[in-house]
Amino acid sequence: MSKLNIVLIGSGNVATHLGKVLKKAKHNILQVFSPTLKSAKILATQLCCAYTNQTSNINPNADIYIIAIKDDAIAELGKKLKVKSKIVVHTSGSVSMDAIKNTSTNYGVFYPLQTFSKAKKVNFKSIPICLESSNFKTLKTLQTLANSISNNVLNISSEQRQNIHIAAVFACNFSNHMYAIADELLKANKLNLDLIKPLIAETSEKIQNNAPESVQTGPAIRGDKKTIKKHLDAIEKKEYKKLYQLISKNIQSHY
Amino acid sequence: MSKLNIVLIGSGNVATHLGKVLKKAKHNILQVFSPTLKSAKILATQLCCAYTNQTSNINPNADIYIIAIKDDAIAELGKKLKVKSKIVVHTSGSVSMDAIKNTSTNYGVFYPLQTFSKAKKVNFKSIPICLESSNFKTLKTLQTLANSISNNVLNISSEQRQNIHIAAVFACNFSNHMYAIADELLKANKLNLDLIKPLIAETSEKIQNNAPESVQTGPAIRGDKKTIKKHLDAIEKKEYKKLYQLISKNIQSHY
Repeated sequence: MSKLNIVLIGSGNVATHLGKVLKKAKHNILQVFSPTLKSAKILATQLCCAYTNQTSNINPNADIYIIAIKDDAIAELGKKLKVKSKIVVHTSGSVSMDAIKNTSTNYGVFYPLQTFSKAKKVNFKSIPICLESSNFKTLKTLQTLANSISNNVLNISSEQRQNIHIAAVFACNFSNHMYAIADELLKANKLNLDLIKPLIAETSEKIQNNAPESVQTGPAIRGDKKTIKKHLDAIEKKEYKKLYQLISKNIQSHY
Repeated sequence: MSKLNIVLIGSGNVATHLGKVLKKAKHNILQVFSPTLKSAKILATQLCCAYTNQTSNINPNADIYIIAIKDDAIAELGKKLKVKSKIVVHTSGSVSMDAIKNTSTNYGVFYPLQTFSKAKKVNFKSIPICLESSNFKTLKTLQTLANSISNNVLNISSEQRQNIHIAAVFACNFSNHMYAIADELLKANKLNLDLIKPLIAETSEKIQNNAPESVQTGPAIRGDKKTIKKHLDAIEKKEYKKLYQLISKNIQSHY
């Protein structure tokens, strides 16, 4: 399998995890770019490569430029990056491929569908990688790259990718926020999240082989009005009360 | 370890799972009661025991009567069950212990903190069992029973139990509803929940060793306003739009 020369643009969670797994797969990480020199240096040190905070100093000799920065900043960065016919991709779930169409004649999207936190290792092999590209040749190279780190590589259009991203926000970001609220409520009562960790694990495990609808439990779906009222009376924070009400109502109308 | 004689009152998810694991731990399930004879029979057949749908026919010779029915129905059932000094417990997260204080001189709560669906086996050993009781002797017996099926037995007051239950509603029921919404949004776009199952697994796995707050990701916490706006424009159902907005706002004010 061919090894590719890569410049990483970004130094956040996605750039860090991608950089590490690509290096492990024996690709050459030539350089890390970040507008913050310190962040660029931290990641470059882990990857044993060069770094810069000047777009004008970005190494022009890579095969692929991977832009892994905040969605809102991608188009702006794209305006400054000109690499002729080299491949440029971004890693965002919600930014259209065209946002970087002026960077090169060959561009695309390389979206790893996972939640990355720096502190937590992930196994890339099972992570779906959603690819999109401006032409077939670029797609082939992106497939080579993606297949070198994952067994789950998919061709996904910009529109599909946005819908997947919205679903991911609900299933991942929002459910994590439910955990955070639970954590806060327990702490306020001198109880520990450890208590409900088996419950959290089981809830997510259940849906690996069952439709979420078919395994919904709790007061809302049972229509336990007294319990719902008791809970609402006991929740102090207005915004959590509102969330409890809205989601319970939503569960009840869903089934 | 002493084996106990048990009557199960209820035939739903909790009664079914508890019945099976208690039988496996060599306790004697004497009888299943359910107001619906057919449901009583189905569970009794699995447990090889007697069954009835008449409260007047409930076997008076058990050591423990376990009431595992809908929260709203517990007090009503409690009015009909009179078993003198035998132990009566309910399994609810949110009903106070006193709801069954007239059933016997010895009563309490036996609350397994888990989400049960009939189709999915669970490993009881790691499930926290929250106990509460009207007196010390009863507590000792409940501990014997709980320790025979779980390594995670806790003494929890009615007030603590309610707070745990509220946290569990957020962390379990509400996050499962987020999965259900994701599933629906994907299906509407001819995509499959399988795509984000690795993401769901990782999200819940992360918090086993990290505070949920510390691993929050996504557009809301990054403050990606454009992405949030794009998502809101793309979501068709009014109630999902409202949920997306409210939870995103909540995430942003939380950090």
